[in-house]
Amino acid sequence: MTLLRVDASIQGDQSASSALADQVLDQFVTARPDVPVVTRHLGQQPLPADAWASAIGGNFTPEADRTEAQRTAIALAQEIAGELQSAEAAVLALPLYNWGVSQHVKTWIDLALAGAPHGAELLQGKPVTLIVTRGGAYGPGTPKEGWDHSVGYLRRIVEEVWGAELTLIERELTLVGVNPALDAFADLAAQMHSTAQEQAAKAGADLAARHSA
Amino acid sequence: MTLLRVDASIQGDQSASSALADQVLDQFVTARPDVPVVTRHLGQQPLPADAWASAIGGNFTPEADRTEAQRTAIALAQEIAGELQSAEAAVLALPLYNWGVSQHVKTWIDLALAGAPHGAELLQGKPVTLIVTRGGAYGPGTPKEGWDHSVGYLRRIVEEVWGAELTLIERELTLVGVNPALDAFADLAAQMHSTAQEQAAKAGADLAARHSA
Repeated sequence: MTLLRVDASIQGDQSASSALADQVLDQFVTARPDVPVVTRHLGQQPLPADAWASAIGGNFTPEADRTEAQRTAIALAQEIAGELQSAEAAVLALPLYNWGVSQHVKTWIDLALAGAPHGAELLQGKPVTLIVTRGGAYGPGTPKEGWDHSVGYLRRIVEEVWGAELTLIERELTLVGVNPALDAFADLAAQMHSTAQEQAAKAGADLAARHSA
Repeated sequence: MTLLRVDASIQGDQSASSALADQVLDQFVTARPDVPVVTRHLGQQPLPADAWASAIGGNFTPEADRTEAQRTAIALAQEIAGELQSAEAAVLALPLYNWGVSQHVKTWIDLALAGAPHGAELLQGKPVTLIVTRGGAYGPGTPKEGWDHSVGYLRRIVEEVWGAELTLIERELTLVGVNPALDAFADLAAQMHSTAQEQAAKAGADLAARHSA
């Protein structure tokens, strides 16, 4: 039994999404120090750009005829699929980048799908906390309403394809304090931050309670 | 004056999207053999997975303090942005993969955005043919209706962010003849194929006419 944590920020110590994941984990680990936490940081150690095509090519090649690159790629794909399959819960901290899914996250999803049997529900019935952070505001009535093209896709994969029970935590306006043009939204940003922190702490406590049940 | 062709298939000679791009180009090149065609194949020569984060880091670092990796990444980002900026027309052959944007295409978009001034409309007013191919059926009433998460995002970037005049060509059921489960759809697939081929030939002729005007 493990808890899988996946990060995709390229902001290192400044990451808003990783900070929220830290809060989920703090609650969880305090209550359940016995559960190993498996981590994968897609932003800091990106998966190779040529692995997915090699894994797909390898999957269509008889085992004895596979190239070394195909074997390596299939092993990586199976490792990634195995991390999802063997986890009993997961925390995914996946920022919105350029209005879409992080390039590194799409590579991870492609490899996970290539590394598992077709149609495998890698997270079936498992509690998954999905943290999505956005630099600006995307709510109803804002100029960028509808410009978050990541959450719909991530729900599709994590909930529908992989079968997880999803808890979604969103935090917007993370660039307030970084981009002076957003200074007018300081109060709203602080409120959104505080709400997300409460949701993260609750998600961690819920995960721990579920695991000890 | 150049025409930019971008491919993202990982299927090589079997690619349905590249075959349609070939048809656009055949029409265009026959009519306008004088126009240089710049090509970038994101599926066969994937962009490196660590370039985008390095380019972003470099953009926030004074030029004299940049690491070698940051310099290389910024040069790549500027090269990609420059290909878009200097093209007078573009043909983008971008298959749907795992219900979303190709990982390699998202990397290309991220780098193009990192390599240009913020808000630059790299394709402003330029004619762009976007070819999207899908293995199955995603139309109204099909089980996978709504599962194409790529076209909405690609339109957002190519039309709204980069300002192109878009012609969208879609071909579905490309796996008919490959996946026996789809054999019942052979007639519909053939019709979709034929329609897409006509649209591709027309798009190429239109591009050529526009350029000679």
